[in-house]
Amino acid sequence: MPGACRAGGARPKEPPTPEDLLLAAAYVSDAQYNRNVLFETSPRAVRLYYFYNHWAMRAATYFFIFLDLSLALFEEPALLPLPASATVGAELLCLAAFLGRLVHFAKVTPQTAFWRDTKNVCIVGALALTLADLVIYGSLAVADIRGVRWSRALRPVFLVNFPDGRQIRRALRSLRNALPDVLRVLLLFLFSLLLFALMALKLFGGRGLKTAQGSPYFSSLLESIFELYVLVTTANSPDVMVPAYERSRWACLFFAAFVVVNTYVFVSVFLAVVYHNYRRHLKNEIRQLAYLKRHKMVAAFNLLKVQAGSESVVEEATWKRLVRAAVPGLGASHLELLLRICDDGRTGHVDKTNFLRLPDLLNIRVVAISARTHPLEAWVPRVYGAPASRFVHAVVRHRVFVWACDAVVLANAVLIALEEKSVVVSRAEWLFLSLYVLEILLKLYTYEPRAYFGRTQFWNWFDALIVVAALVGTVAHDAIRAAGNYDSQPILDVVLVLRVLRLLRVVVSVQKFRVIVNALLSVGPMTLTFGGLVLVVYYALAIVGMELFQGRVHFLGPNATRAEALVCGNPALSGSAFARSRYCTSNFNDLASALVVLMELTVVNQWHVLAGGFAQVTHPAAMLYFVVVHVVVVILVVNIFTAVILEVFFVAYSLEKSEVETAIEKKIQELGVGIPEADVEGLPGGDAGDGSDKTALQGLYFRIASKKYRTVDTLLQRMFESEIAPDDEGPTLDEILSGSPSDMYLQNPSYEEGA
Amino acid sequence: MPGACRAGGARPKEPPTPEDLLLAAAYVSDAQYNRNVLFETSPRAVRLYYFYNHWAMRAATYFFIFLDLSLALFEEPALLPLPASATVGAELLCLAAFLGRLVHFAKVTPQTAFWRDTKNVCIVGALALTLADLVIYGSLAVADIRGVRWSRALRPVFLVNFPDGRQIRRALRSLRNALPDVLRVLLLFLFSLLLFALMALKLFGGRGLKTAQGSPYFSSLLESIFELYVLVTTANSPDVMVPAYERSRWACLFFAAFVVVNTYVFVSVFLAVVYHNYRRHLKNEIRQLAYLKRHKMVAAFNLLKVQAGSESVVEEATWKRLVRAAVPGLGASHLELLLRICDDGRTGHVDKTNFLRLPDLLNIRVVAISARTHPLEAWVPRVYGAPASRFVHAVVRHRVFVWACDAVVLANAVLIALEEKSVVVSRAEWLFLSLYVLEILLKLYTYEPRAYFGRTQFWNWFDALIVVAALVGTVAHDAIRAAGNYDSQPILDVVLVLRVLRLLRVVVSVQKFRVIVNALLSVGPMTLTFGGLVLVVYYALAIVGMELFQGRVHFLGPNATRAEALVCGNPALSGSAFARSRYCTSNFNDLASALVVLMELTVVNQWHVLAGGFAQVTHPAAMLYFVVVHVVVVILVVNIFTAVILEVFFVAYSLEKSEVETAIEKKIQELGVGIPEADVEGLPGGDAGDGSDKTALQGLYFRIASKKYRTVDTLLQRMFESEIAPDDEGPTLDEILSGSPSDMYLQNPSYEEGA
Repeated sequence: MPGACRAGGARPKEPPTPEDLLLAAAYVSDAQYNRNVLFETSPRAVRLYYFYNHWAMRAATYFFIFLDLSLALFEEPALLPLPASATVGAELLCLAAFLGRLVHFAKVTPQTAFWRDTKNVCIVGALALTLADLVIYGSLAVADIRGVRWSRALRPVFLVNFPDGRQIRRALRSLRNALPDVLRVLLLFLFSLLLFALMALKLFGGRGLKTAQGSPYFSSLLESIFELYVLVTTANSPDVMVPAYERSRWACLFFAAFVVVNTYVFVSVFLAVVYHNYRRHLKNEIRQLAYLKRHKMVAAFNLLKVQAGSESVVEEATWKRLVRAAVPGLGASHLELLLRICDDGRTGHVDKTNFLRLPDLLNIRVVAISARTHPLEAWVPRVYGAPASRFVHAVVRHRVFVWACDAVVLANAVLIALEEKSVVVSRAEWLFLSLYVLEILLKLYTYEPRAYFGRTQFWNWFDALIVVAALVGTVAHDAIRAAGNYDSQPILDVVLVLRVLRLLRVVVSVQKFRVIVNALLSVGPMTLTFGGLVLVVYYALAIVGMELFQGRVHFLGPNATRAEALVCGNPALSGSAFARSRYCTSNFNDLASALVVLMELTVVNQWHVLAGGFAQVTHPAAMLYFVVVHVVVVILVVNIFTAVILEVFFVAYSLEKSEVETAIEKKIQELGVGIPEADVEGLPGGDAGDGSDKTALQGLYFRIASKKYRTVDTLLQRMFESEIAPDDEGPTLDEILSGSPSDMYLQNPSYEEGA
Repeated sequence: MPGACRAGGARPKEPPTPEDLLLAAAYVSDAQYNRNVLFETSPRAVRLYYFYNHWAMRAATYFFIFLDLSLALFEEPALLPLPASATVGAELLCLAAFLGRLVHFAKVTPQTAFWRDTKNVCIVGALALTLADLVIYGSLAVADIRGVRWSRALRPVFLVNFPDGRQIRRALRSLRNALPDVLRVLLLFLFSLLLFALMALKLFGGRGLKTAQGSPYFSSLLESIFELYVLVTTANSPDVMVPAYERSRWACLFFAAFVVVNTYVFVSVFLAVVYHNYRRHLKNEIRQLAYLKRHKMVAAFNLLKVQAGSESVVEEATWKRLVRAAVPGLGASHLELLLRICDDGRTGHVDKTNFLRLPDLLNIRVVAISARTHPLEAWVPRVYGAPASRFVHAVVRHRVFVWACDAVVLANAVLIALEEKSVVVSRAEWLFLSLYVLEILLKLYTYEPRAYFGRTQFWNWFDALIVVAALVGTVAHDAIRAAGNYDSQPILDVVLVLRVLRLLRVVVSVQKFRVIVNALLSVGPMTLTFGGLVLVVYYALAIVGMELFQGRVHFLGPNATRAEALVCGNPALSGSAFARSRYCTSNFNDLASALVVLMELTVVNQWHVLAGGFAQVTHPAAMLYFVVVHVVVVILVVNIFTAVILEVFFVAYSLEKSEVETAIEKKIQELGVGIPEADVEGLPGGDAGDGSDKTALQGLYFRIASKKYRTVDTLLQRMFESEIAPDDEGPTLDEILSGSPSDMYLQNPSYEEGA
């Protein structure tokens, strides 16, 4: 360990070894991306660790994870049947890839840490179980016995536990942490349900009442409980009340009390409990992350520090090499900007406080806008600078131009709403398309193209993509129709959706809506995490559902005989509400269908009809599956989703610039290379300012990327970090990671601060 | 103004005049109850103000408000028809009472303040409009034209605007303040709905698809919008998807996107916006209240202060007279306890800081538990103290006794769940009843009866009431049945509900549930406010609905011919989903029915069937009424309810003792007269402690009433108050009450602090 031996005191003034630099850069990179990985510090291990974090390796892992998950589409019951040999082969390939990734990780991390990490244990367990299942299934298949591929429900384990899926893991942990509290409320809720069911049984049962379908009403305790449980989900309201209410008007009091207590109060309490736990858990995790980051950065500092007077510092040259190693793609001018911020007094070295800020600085997206002249101005300056050309620029930059574009979009919308049959309307579509293309061309003529298609110009990309796609689609549609009687309807449908989506542009033009739209967009990153969670939960539930209900219900399509189609191909369904409502398409006969059924169950309405149908074709106990789905999906998953959105909105309401951002902005302003955030549309011409201090920054402009790209995560993290003093290294790692591999840090002397 | 002339400097050492004392006590009482009333300070006006606040006057006002509201039950369309002369007479009586109350208030408050208060303007307006409506209606009735009693929808105005309904007013204000934000999101939501409706129209309309009922599918833009709006409420899921999904499986992507964006994201955003506004508004109001309280208390202090050394103080004797005048029912020992807290050093006077704390001290419910001996011990000491008697005490106090009682309740529950027909079960009910009575008698024998039925012993009262009611009910039932063939079923039903409710007692015995149950109980007070809000909104909506839809749909009962009953007495409904689902009882033919329909609409499920039915019997535009009900009730009212519950739970999670409570508890402990909060069940025997300082407190025990009686309101208020320095009187009243009558305070010199 090259860093370890020198960590106790200050280093003499000599450049750090490439190995130290590489190790420090790995620490910085880990701190920047909040990676929580313990790696060996030998040069070989560090190089392996770099390779482990290489984007291609991570992409490959994700590819195999999704390949593994998607196998369910091709296995029995299949959406697109493939021979079993192909799917088993693909699965073995995936398992090999997972094993390879795991072995790679084992080479990077210390042996003891590897086995103390539950992630790795989970993966090893899932690998072993899947292999065992494959062997058993294969042997049974040889003996011609149909086995159950139960290990398929374990596939999401890989999505959760490969280190890159940290966010999903956190969401699942927060779900698990909420469980005890939720369970307590659930018990109380079930008790309340039981009380009401007892009352309903006595008050309404055994009095000869019939439901609208003519079945007996609250005839047994079990049925009473189920009916009222369905009422909690509101799915059978007001039907369940009708017979009792017809008999006596006072019955409405019972149902009103029930709905208030169980549907409103308890459902809100579930949300409160889940939300509270989510927040508490998030705060704890963020605190942990902040301390881990601090530890990594202190380790990097100790590797590179030299003594300068009374304090330890990192020299400018070392610092630059470090940042280049940690972020290979960083531009020279951006690096210069960061250095000016970190070494404010131009002392030639970076002190500890500024060094520790580095990951935050790297995480702030600074948009470097080159003040390059427009390509046309370089090529044909005379034409581009001519009065007519300048007039076009002025028109395009004018507010009225935006309004005119919006008016065109609106006119297009009206046309879409009208009938499409007439030739005029069809011609008009071409007119609108050319107007859109003209708009984009005019803008590209006026603004610098690379700036117009900058990384944060979301709406410009949106416009261009939609117009190009619509253009391609319309041309393709017309070409296919002209070529003969092919069905080009799907292409037309896509073009149509694109056309309608273009209307979104109008909303963003309205200032008042922009705040909400931006808040909604900032839900995006969270939704990705949440989507992972949903995928994990739904996939496992779908696999179980497919094993239980596959082939019981069939949608026979328009060609089936009427009698068969009416009972979804299963005589047990004759006369059932399931068949009457034409729910034959809601079945578990392949993964896609199963996911659609789960979506329908999430929306809750009519779930009791679906559940009843599947109970009729299998066994009444099948109801249990649907109740479990309801509890897991509606009470936990949907409430977490609501909690996430509430949190995002509350954070958006209290949006403030962080201390680090303010520092960067101040520096940018001081250097005279800033652009006000409002000037996003009107990009600058070519006046480069006239500070004395910008040799390296000539021709470049910077601004902080818009706030809307921030996530709750980073906001919370900064909130907490601002509370840690620069010299505070927090609790020991053991205290932070109770139960996680941790004492390696403490054994590694480079983690103990010298000086 | 007797107080005004002396307010500038300190008073010589002479007792305050009775008038000053009365005025100061009025201030204290206002501060205690957070009344925000500006009254004249002349002795006559102060006495009138006392009379205005008398409980009988307030009770009478409430009586007339509810009488006025309940008139809708007796007016056309009536639940219990009364002649029009009777209802109009009652209404006139109510109006007279309201006018009287208003005139009384006008006598108390300064003229200018009266008219600047929107409350009074609202009341005067509502009175005038109601009178005008009555006159018009009467004239039309004379001319035999049926008029519309539109002013009936104004009746909730009285409930909202009479000063005692401050809480409801605040809830309404918070609703109104949330409106702009909600409206913005609503517009965006409608826009999103429009986009999706356009897509649906183009993708699924005009392709010959039919719904399960055989009607055309997404045939026009308006229908498309309505169908998707219903899908947001989930009421037509998954039916709306079925035809498209049967045709192409890709259709599920459209519906999934729709549900995620509109049902989940937007609905959560509505909750976030309402919740955020609710909290912000609550904080502002509480801040205002805290400053008003401070102003009132400073005014009271300035009236009574005398100079003692360098500081102004209130003498002990004056202080005692003041508290007695402000809270006539306060016990002598409680008064003594408060004095010890306020005059900690026993200096003979109360300083300003302690004086300002008085309303908080008065608001903390201190339970004075007299250590009186059990009445039986006084009467027959020998028997009560005998070993057998002591053994009974020990048994009753033992934990196993509680368990045994719970076991009896559970056994009873099992029996209830069984069939009731057999004679054994019927007999067993008598056995259980006697066991319950025995339990209560034993407890009364062991514990001091007045302590057992203390004001905060909620569950003891609950037990006793349920047992007594069940006893009375069972006896009455048996007596009626024995007397002849009367129908005693309703009584039996009530008894049955009581029996089942007794099971609640078991839950409370489980420690883990007690926290949640207490949090749920603390929702109670909030629910009262919220119930007022619901009443106001529902009443107005019901009145409008009755005018629109009365008599259109009839429930004909079991005696009608089948054909008539099948269409709810209205041929327009033949073949409709409304009639098929047997919703004839859901009509607007009287107030009670209308409220039930509104409840069904709140639960949302099948609301489109109800709306469709009423549109069929009147006009398609009737749909608008139901959409408005949905927006108001589901988006606003239900979300506020959820916000309230979330807030209550978050406050319950961060429950801490306030500074004032801690001071009181410390004092109680110092004086040695405290009881640990845990000892609620085991009330003390007779050991009076042995402090030296309790001449006046002999034989009394105190403890802070349990936390569960605290509301979010008081908690927030204390949070904010702890942030105001004792000398800070906050912004001027004009700043606080912008727009409210305020400058009277400033004209009144007693409000400016001297010394």
